[in-house]
Amino acid sequence: MVQVDTIRLQRTRAALQQAGLAGLVCRLPENVLLLSGYWPMNGLALLVFPTEGEPILLAPEAEAHLAAEGWAQDVRTFSWGTLHSGDQFATMERLAKQAAADLGLQGKPVGYEGSFEFVAAPYVCAEPGVIAGVTQNILRAALGGGLVDATSLLHGLRAIKTPAEVDRLRRVNRVAKLGLRAFAEQVQPGRSEIEIAAAVEAAIQIGGTDSADARIARGFAWVLAGPNSAVSYKPHLRSSSRRVAEGELVVLELATVADGWWSDLTRTRVAGRANVADVERWQAVVEAQQTDIAAMRAGVPANQVDAAGRDLLAARGLGEYFIHHTGHGIGLRYHEPEPFIHPDVATPLQAGMVTSVEPGIYSPDWGGMRCEDNVLVTEDGAEVLSEFPRDLAG
Amino acid sequence: MVQVDTIRLQRTRAALQQAGLAGLVCRLPENVLLLSGYWPMNGLALLVFPTEGEPILLAPEAEAHLAAEGWAQDVRTFSWGTLHSGDQFATMERLAKQAAADLGLQGKPVGYEGSFEFVAAPYVCAEPGVIAGVTQNILRAALGGGLVDATSLLHGLRAIKTPAEVDRLRRVNRVAKLGLRAFAEQVQPGRSEIEIAAAVEAAIQIGGTDSADARIARGFAWVLAGPNSAVSYKPHLRSSSRRVAEGELVVLELATVADGWWSDLTRTRVAGRANVADVERWQAVVEAQQTDIAAMRAGVPANQVDAAGRDLLAARGLGEYFIHHTGHGIGLRYHEPEPFIHPDVATPLQAGMVTSVEPGIYSPDWGGMRCEDNVLVTEDGAEVLSEFPRDLAG
Repeated sequence: MVQVDTIRLQRTRAALQQAGLAGLVCRLPENVLLLSGYWPMNGLALLVFPTEGEPILLAPEAEAHLAAEGWAQDVRTFSWGTLHSGDQFATMERLAKQAAADLGLQGKPVGYEGSFEFVAAPYVCAEPGVIAGVTQNILRAALGGGLVDATSLLHGLRAIKTPAEVDRLRRVNRVAKLGLRAFAEQVQPGRSEIEIAAAVEAAIQIGGTDSADARIARGFAWVLAGPNSAVSYKPHLRSSSRRVAEGELVVLELATVADGWWSDLTRTRVAGRANVADVERWQAVVEAQQTDIAAMRAGVPANQVDAAGRDLLAARGLGEYFIHHTGHGIGLRYHEPEPFIHPDVATPLQAGMVTSVEPGIYSPDWGGMRCEDNVLVTEDGAEVLSEFPRDLAG
Repeated sequence: MVQVDTIRLQRTRAALQQAGLAGLVCRLPENVLLLSGYWPMNGLALLVFPTEGEPILLAPEAEAHLAAEGWAQDVRTFSWGTLHSGDQFATMERLAKQAAADLGLQGKPVGYEGSFEFVAAPYVCAEPGVIAGVTQNILRAALGGGLVDATSLLHGLRAIKTPAEVDRLRRVNRVAKLGLRAFAEQVQPGRSEIEIAAAVEAAIQIGGTDSADARIARGFAWVLAGPNSAVSYKPHLRSSSRRVAEGELVVLELATVADGWWSDLTRTRVAGRANVADVERWQAVVEAQQTDIAAMRAGVPANQVDAAGRDLLAARGLGEYFIHHTGHGIGLRYHEPEPFIHPDVATPLQAGMVTSVEPGIYSPDWGGMRCEDNVLVTEDGAEVLSEFPRDLAG
């Protein structure tokens, strides 16, 4: 069994109490993992978490061994996907009603995942299960009219990691470095973007699975080279069959998941020999990142961190090319909304937050480059969880 | 520009008219693709499709070039993810209101994606965008109280493919065969499950991307060997670091996506030399599959197809080990709900349906094996879209 994260449970109960909620009900794998230590493979589990008392976990029989490794003591399984599973959603509704009754939650105010517009991919990532009308009807049938959208409450809880969660993020970043290493080896003239991306993903899967740091590991790599690097900040990233030419910039955007915990890293390299202008720009980006990190500690407004690196880039004549935020939360998803390190956000950072720090500059004239690491905010500074060489070439 | 699928548009308009709907609004990439020929990379687009008149497509600026290749003439873009994108959901709401007003849809009955409990992974598959409370509020603000859950209508439309869609499914199955070929080469004593899975995924990405059959291609492979093969029917599939031993069964479950269209295939192989009992069981499974396919044509009840292969396995003394359905729809998702080829479903098949046909047998005593192909139902028979050798060894 995974060690119970009592700090996480205490914080959650306190937040629920403060919000006047009698409990929380979660189906998204990311939130079931947060509150039970069990990462559902396919989004079929349901966790009914009371503010007082012990949670009840509904899990598919096929995942009973995984659910048993989590913290929930009361695990109730159901059949899914075999010839005799019957009406599976009807079974889930019956079990949800029973759980709500056993915990005395019916009709009381209970939080649910009402506004997760983006969800973390589960391991069976080709077809994620989400919270749509069927699930919402099950929750309403089980809990009555007291359902409250607890998305903000959950994001707020998730923003500040417990020590056990920071350990998870150290692990996923160690796994992700297998991908950064493969990237450094693979960036060579003649390789295609998609070949490099596939090699990075394979290195993470093969090296991370059943390793000292993870049971399950998967990487999602996007590689953009030459002119494509100039659009590597966009959300429509794709790796193409284009072959990298000597001297071209190559950007790797890399999401890694290890047992449900995420890393979000970027490195930029040059295939072959880098030109002087690229080296100078890259030095500015790396210095901007280091300046951001040096500015981070509990109590510092997010936009003060943003300004640190942004001002440095502006001083080097590169300010206009840094067109996005400096960082975002990370943990149970590749991008978490809190904190957001952006010029308009004055909210102070808090100890235990983990964020990306990712200055990047982009121009159709000379391409794009970004350096992204994952950083833990502490009382008196910050710690990089993904320390790995930031060499542009060599 | 992609050739407009006029048959798809006609069928959709007829179905909307029959349902008394003035239009349909879609945000899931799978449905935007269905109705516009454009596959959003990240779930940020919104298609407002009137029963009469021309649709309006809202798309992020970063994907404008992709949206322009689709069929929608009226494409309205918005900024997303840069420093000056502002409140992105507020922008989406403003544009959705304008689109609904321009099409005269406000207050009228309009269908939306209310109950998609499972969604297809977008290309940026680490973090799919879905239909949660924020989107629903935008739709309500734009369209008023007439929103109707059109999930069943959409699944019904999706179940019967147009010729252009069948062509897409031929393409994705050609791409998927790159993975089957890699699997045949990789299944050798000493290889680990995760090594084989990573090689299959790499073959699909590298061979499929920017190929004659696809612009974007990705494979999701799960490899289960030896004792793990006995649970390869379960929804919690995972490839482990376990190394395959001489004579062991190895099951590949393979989801492939090419430009938004999916394939779902399974092959079973033995590492090294197969034993006689495994060969006999495998012959029964393959014959069951061929018997199912021979029974398929428009008008035949789904459970009659299921019975064909199931009876054959029972006659060979293997009936008790075939514990799941025979097939499911496939197309815009790895598993579509219609049709469902199952003993309890007497609904007749229709020409243009594409289904998996996947008999499998599983026992803790000797392991598991499954043979899965994707098959097009025609007026007078069926056509396998994924024809590829079904050898167990050699």
